[in-house]
Amino acid sequence: MYYSQTARLAVYAQGEFHKGKSKTAEGVIRYAPNPIVAVIDSTQTGKRVCDVIPDIKCDAPLVSSIDDALQFKPDALLLGTAWAGGGMPAQWKPDIIEALEGGMDVINGLHDFLCDDPQIAATAARCGRKLLDVRKPPNDLPVASKRVLESCNAHVVLTVGSDCSVGKMTASLEIQKSAVRRKINAGFVATGQTGIMICGSGIAVDRVIGDFMAGAVEQMVVESGKNHDIVLVEGQGSLVHPGFSGVTLALLHGACPHAMILCHKATRKCTISTEHPLPPLPAFVPLYEQMASWMRPAKVIAIAVNTVGLTEEEAGAYVDDMSRQTGLPCCDPVRHGADILLDAILTNQEKTR
Amino acid sequence: MYYSQTARLAVYAQGEFHKGKSKTAEGVIRYAPNPIVAVIDSTQTGKRVCDVIPDIKCDAPLVSSIDDALQFKPDALLLGTAWAGGGMPAQWKPDIIEALEGGMDVINGLHDFLCDDPQIAATAARCGRKLLDVRKPPNDLPVASKRVLESCNAHVVLTVGSDCSVGKMTASLEIQKSAVRRKINAGFVATGQTGIMICGSGIAVDRVIGDFMAGAVEQMVVESGKNHDIVLVEGQGSLVHPGFSGVTLALLHGACPHAMILCHKATRKCTISTEHPLPPLPAFVPLYEQMASWMRPAKVIAIAVNTVGLTEEEAGAYVDDMSRQTGLPCCDPVRHGADILLDAILTNQEKTR
Repeated sequence: MYYSQTARLAVYAQGEFHKGKSKTAEGVIRYAPNPIVAVIDSTQTGKRVCDVIPDIKCDAPLVSSIDDALQFKPDALLLGTAWAGGGMPAQWKPDIIEALEGGMDVINGLHDFLCDDPQIAATAARCGRKLLDVRKPPNDLPVASKRVLESCNAHVVLTVGSDCSVGKMTASLEIQKSAVRRKINAGFVATGQTGIMICGSGIAVDRVIGDFMAGAVEQMVVESGKNHDIVLVEGQGSLVHPGFSGVTLALLHGACPHAMILCHKATRKCTISTEHPLPPLPAFVPLYEQMASWMRPAKVIAIAVNTVGLTEEEAGAYVDDMSRQTGLPCCDPVRHGADILLDAILTNQEKTR
Repeated sequence: MYYSQTARLAVYAQGEFHKGKSKTAEGVIRYAPNPIVAVIDSTQTGKRVCDVIPDIKCDAPLVSSIDDALQFKPDALLLGTAWAGGGMPAQWKPDIIEALEGGMDVINGLHDFLCDDPQIAATAARCGRKLLDVRKPPNDLPVASKRVLESCNAHVVLTVGSDCSVGKMTASLEIQKSAVRRKINAGFVATGQTGIMICGSGIAVDRVIGDFMAGAVEQMVVESGKNHDIVLVEGQGSLVHPGFSGVTLALLHGACPHAMILCHKATRKCTISTEHPLPPLPAFVPLYEQMASWMRPAKVIAIAVNTVGLTEEEAGAYVDDMSRQTGLPCCDPVRHGADILLDAILTNQEKTR
């Protein structure tokens, strides 16, 4: 565990707390077991989390500053926004220092590490507070060599996607929630900063040195397989994203999944940040299956669609259309629950036994 | 330039200097412009380089120790062996320290950096010598976003492979040699430690953090395109290697090549170090073409085979067979020269104009 899952969190999303935009903040509030005491976004003071994202049952207030957050006695400030490249905006620094001086630890998922900033590091040391750079990888990772095939008896399911930020982590976590309800022993392997903040362990694969990315995944999957019947691996990026496709393929070849869930955002037409046009969703099915096949034959067994921004009716029609186009079960796991995704996994598990 | 290309080099390959085995040593001796004054391998004292690798015109002696090498007045010791994982064997350390104390700089291509070893760093500082960790990437790399398509007018050719260590760098360098002879302005982009040692610049992509691998390649290709009509990009790994496929795909999507040369080693049946069975060579052609197509349509236009270990007759038969199976020009660029590979590039360049 990188941090206590009972610690009280204030989430920093200055100017950026909106449904479907502040990915880390929303993911942590939605799925982490920690109490959320406040969200810092001075552009929305007076609202509560559930006013901004109605389907999250959280009434923590939006406040304008670190100072305002302190009255709610947070144990830590969690930096809740991030973007491609992962650098730290200069205007965050005074707030981070104020949080440390106010007695909070700081949890950070950016590529820029807090512990590498001399002023922040010195402040943390002086105030006796912790800096938790969750994207910092371990130093002793192996090169992958299909260890999952030899050393993992669990059924491994990887979420793959048409693009970044389409709901791969969310689909995995919703499937795990369904599994818990149905008393099925399913583990979640976090491979990105938000997933690590939520479940308390994992490795941010996009921060690992190229040669060791697949090895990092392999190691986590083998470890999770010791304690679970099903291992749900959080995917990253997309095989067609110019910037991140290498990370995506390393995940696929490190995890050696038995099956894949294809994730997509209904409104997404181009890859995020690079504006590369996306092929039609059904084209991703043979693409991922072919690339997986070099390690172990694996099918895309279901589709998880993020329908944020669509009405209930539009979402239903979109899901039906995708299911018809691919011949696969399809749902929005946040709107509809993930039972049909879990059913697809259990059917696949039965078949491959 | 990371280091002077006129510096006199002693190559360290203790116990491991054999044709086709000590990849870095052989590559540097074969292609770097630097004078090679000695190779250190105590198991073969008394021989010369050309006794061990007859097709290299180099009569530098094999000597048993750093002390023996010093009589030939080397400017630097170049660590000439490496393997998956890239750690530094403990028994090298006394020799590295002896080299520094003897007045040599040390050139290192391993994942383990010399500058991170306190004793080695202190010795270098005390002796006023340089430690050159060529695999150390720059700190300010971008996320890739198809900049090659927008900002590079040169014809970009990437070597791709069935596996690691099959001759991708060698094929690129032999093509460049042919181009120089024919007064064609072709640049070489080094993406691995040996390539960097040979041409004096580049970034070891397998040492770059996942999110920035493709961005590193993109940046180098755009830069090289400013000064060359053809840019020859050194590929890495293989799309079917469990440990390195992510690096391979990042290279493909960062370089956005116009065309690819497929490289293979005739005697290779399984991926190196992981023993994953290789598909038949013709299967790689549509695989690389499909994965390239997400950025820019690109064909595999020729095959470069490394026939080390085969007789002249066997090599000829193998090359003919591969050419027949794929319908593509094929040769061993070291045995036969790379003219037919360059011809294929020029034809392709003409077509895509």
